[in-house]
Amino acid sequence: MSEIFVIEEYAVALLLIATLVGIVARRSRMPYTVGLVIVGAALAILYQPFHIEVEPELILGIFVPPLIFEAAFHLPIKELRRNITSILALAIVGVLLTTFLVGGIVHLGSGMDITSAIVFGSIIAATDPVAVIALFGSLGVPKRLQVLLEGESLLNDGTAIVVFNIAVTAAVTGSFDLREGIGEFIFSAGMGLGIGLVLGLVASFIISKVDDYLIETAITFVLAYGAFILAEMIHVSGVLAVVAAGLVNGNIGPRGMSSTTRIVVYNFWDFMSFLANSFVFLMIGLVVDLPLLVDNWRATLWGILAALLSRLIVIYGLFPRSKTLPFRWKHILFWGGLRGAISLALVLGLTTKIGREVSGQLQAMVFGLVVFTLLVQGTSMNWLVKRTGIIHRREERDEYDLRRARASTTRAAYDHLKKIHKEGMISKHVWDIITKTVESYSDELTKSLQEILKQHPNVEAEELDSAWREFLQYQRLALAELLADRGITEDVFNQLSSRIDNQLASSEIAWDSAEKMDRNLWQLGARRTDLRSDSD
Amino acid sequence: MSEIFVIEEYAVALLLIATLVGIVARRSRMPYTVGLVIVGAALAILYQPFHIEVEPELILGIFVPPLIFEAAFHLPIKELRRNITSILALAIVGVLLTTFLVGGIVHLGSGMDITSAIVFGSIIAATDPVAVIALFGSLGVPKRLQVLLEGESLLNDGTAIVVFNIAVTAAVTGSFDLREGIGEFIFSAGMGLGIGLVLGLVASFIISKVDDYLIETAITFVLAYGAFILAEMIHVSGVLAVVAAGLVNGNIGPRGMSSTTRIVVYNFWDFMSFLANSFVFLMIGLVVDLPLLVDNWRATLWGILAALLSRLIVIYGLFPRSKTLPFRWKHILFWGGLRGAISLALVLGLTTKIGREVSGQLQAMVFGLVVFTLLVQGTSMNWLVKRTGIIHRREERDEYDLRRARASTTRAAYDHLKKIHKEGMISKHVWDIITKTVESYSDELTKSLQEILKQHPNVEAEELDSAWREFLQYQRLALAELLADRGITEDVFNQLSSRIDNQLASSEIAWDSAEKMDRNLWQLGARRTDLRSDSD
Repeated sequence: MSEIFVIEEYAVALLLIATLVGIVARRSRMPYTVGLVIVGAALAILYQPFHIEVEPELILGIFVPPLIFEAAFHLPIKELRRNITSILALAIVGVLLTTFLVGGIVHLGSGMDITSAIVFGSIIAATDPVAVIALFGSLGVPKRLQVLLEGESLLNDGTAIVVFNIAVTAAVTGSFDLREGIGEFIFSAGMGLGIGLVLGLVASFIISKVDDYLIETAITFVLAYGAFILAEMIHVSGVLAVVAAGLVNGNIGPRGMSSTTRIVVYNFWDFMSFLANSFVFLMIGLVVDLPLLVDNWRATLWGILAALLSRLIVIYGLFPRSKTLPFRWKHILFWGGLRGAISLALVLGLTTKIGREVSGQLQAMVFGLVVFTLLVQGTSMNWLVKRTGIIHRREERDEYDLRRARASTTRAAYDHLKKIHKEGMISKHVWDIITKTVESYSDELTKSLQEILKQHPNVEAEELDSAWREFLQYQRLALAELLADRGITEDVFNQLSSRIDNQLASSEIAWDSAEKMDRNLWQLGARRTDLRSDSD
Repeated sequence: MSEIFVIEEYAVALLLIATLVGIVARRSRMPYTVGLVIVGAALAILYQPFHIEVEPELILGIFVPPLIFEAAFHLPIKELRRNITSILALAIVGVLLTTFLVGGIVHLGSGMDITSAIVFGSIIAATDPVAVIALFGSLGVPKRLQVLLEGESLLNDGTAIVVFNIAVTAAVTGSFDLREGIGEFIFSAGMGLGIGLVLGLVASFIISKVDDYLIETAITFVLAYGAFILAEMIHVSGVLAVVAAGLVNGNIGPRGMSSTTRIVVYNFWDFMSFLANSFVFLMIGLVVDLPLLVDNWRATLWGILAALLSRLIVIYGLFPRSKTLPFRWKHILFWGGLRGAISLALVLGLTTKIGREVSGQLQAMVFGLVVFTLLVQGTSMNWLVKRTGIIHRREERDEYDLRRARASTTRAAYDHLKKIHKEGMISKHVWDIITKTVESYSDELTKSLQEILKQHPNVEAEELDSAWREFLQYQRLALAELLADRGITEDVFNQLSSRIDNQLASSEIAWDSAEKMDRNLWQLGARRTDLRSDSD
């Protein structure tokens, strides 16, 4: 057995476990990431071979780039620019404030020496709201608030790593030059962003020149990892390089892509970040060292307290009377400051740099904090979002869904009775009575549905829109199956699928008339003329 | 720098090169895989650090499973079943014949000892037509011919590996028990297929119970690698396990998937097999050892000659006067017998098993053959296909296919919406709007189809012809099933099947009238008269 097989077996086993956790999490409505951490920890305790030593490079070099790239790729640059002041304040001032506040509190509270405490502060300065972002989407949290939290997390990952490196050097050498520190910070962050920017532009340019969805997807893949590797090679921030590359490529690149390519690229990165997240959170659970946590419970508690307090001060103190940041949003920003993969990767890489004893203590504190934020903050976010009342789901939509459910279940039950009647289990006489009643009731239900649709044209529009999308996606699928069965050639497939994809990408709906459907979808008219003129 | 980073850098660099080759190949209309091999070889010669020692486990364990899984996933089981006799003959008898024929020719020609020559025969018995399959799709080669070549390659990968293991054991121990060899072959192949079948069914069942495209994609991923790992763990054929898993999952699994999931899963495996192919063919180039090739040029030439000769004998000899396999198709099957990843992986794993000297010689021979088939057969396939005249693509036929795909996918999507509407998920009001538009549009599509059929009677004739053939073949299949179920006697089966086969062999179509169908097919009239005269 080669080593490759051992790694492969382990990875496939982990993915199998993650898949099962995912299935159970969906049924039990528990956050997926929380389930992964719990199952990971349980596995590590119950079954020794699963307890692993995770190399920090594995997380930083393999799993973090796709996570960051995917998040940056999907972040609309327009939204980001609109909120850039707040985001930069959080990602730069916030990280520095957190580092020193947490360092001070932990030093005073637990008696840890100040340099180690500051290292701890820098380790946990990066937030990781991935566990709640999916929740935000499904609850309908305002887009701008999501962008704030995601943008902060994207940029503070990079700045926190830079600050961490400076803090560790200071802790090891015992000396710190403020001016040199600032210079290093600016150089590392700026060069990282610059490399990502340039590579992102180059990749987007190449993408615009090629039309092959496999090659284009491969280019984004090379870009995500290439930006990271190149930046790390010249010792500047790889994470920030990936952030810049993802932002540029996600906002410029897709313009040069066909709709098919866009769908493939989006889906690919969606799946990559799902894979990376699954592995990272399972590993967070797997590396939890229970005895170490128990031994350091006091310091761990101080760490959690310090993190919460500093987050409180940063969020409510940094924007004391902001007009653009409603007070209720701040609660979400405060409680949404979870910690995750970056903090874990940083603390795992410490052992070789500072003593084993201190790094062990710091590991316990970071694990404790990460698990706390996930289990406590992550699971209560749903409640908080609903409580703060920042989401307004429209009443008429709820009412419509209610009436539709009533109508469709009535219909289903009626159909079921009809079947029984046909089998002779309900007599003709009784059936006539039932029919009369149910039919007229069913009519009423239908009328009450139409009423809403008439009163609220937007509800009708929404339904037409989702039916149009369903129609297109099903056609797309039928086409793929025709190709798989070799019923059509690749050429025909490409011609037709690119039209459907264009429609999927546009916001127009074409239920108005056959002419419009034709114009939007197949352009039969145009084609027919071509043929006719050929034969002329 | 950790080792992980080194591997990552290398992989990203290779993918970058592959992407660039892909871009150039598209522009210059050169086959992608051929370009990869050439660039890989050039890199290895010009720039020493790129010359690598590829672990055979890397190819067999990491790259082959996705290649095989994707191919099996997309192979329609109905088509496979219809051609199963020819495919099994090629994949089992063909592999055994090739092994011994090549072994004999190389032994006699180059003077290599017979056991090593037979090992060589087993190494190159597996075909790998991936470099020409894409070409077939774009040229419009008959579907059945594609399925034949793809099906052969899928199944002979597995059987060749089993034969190879037996041959190596025989070469090392110096003894060979025929009965034991056959037993081992059946056990390894059967158990491998069985494991894949069971896992494929389990995975398809789970997929039908879950509705989350990320989790479902992850399940197919775990299935592909899990089947391979599990089979290899108990020392049976991992490759055949992946074949069975892919076939089952690709034919049953998608039924339990939503449209979105299907698109994501199809695209994901498309990209995975693109990645695996890119790496494998680049590596074929990178491991080419020029001095070794030069030193063994005579044996290499004999190897190529033996491979061509044995392929000639297998293809033209195995089906001497087959009615279902047109003579012209045999040229394509013969020339389409390229060799690739499997042969390479097998020969790279030899060094530890048999002496360094013999394995070096075998490596040179296999590399030489793989590169020859790719560069010579792969690049001339386009010409051959056009030359044999097995494709008749005319503009009006293309246009007809296009319109038919348009009409049928529109119809399918409309039926899908109708189902949703009946389930009450689309309101009556919205449905009325949709119906009106789609119905009139659908009418137009139908009209545009009829238009072509009227203008081009030959297109109509072709469709009638292919429907007639479909009709006959399905009857043939139903007959075989009746016999298998003991619904008819062998005598009845023989009588009826010979009539159908006669019809299949003739070029006449009998859609004109019931009388003509009767006369051509069952001759009911004649029979009836016979009966009457009997009772007289």
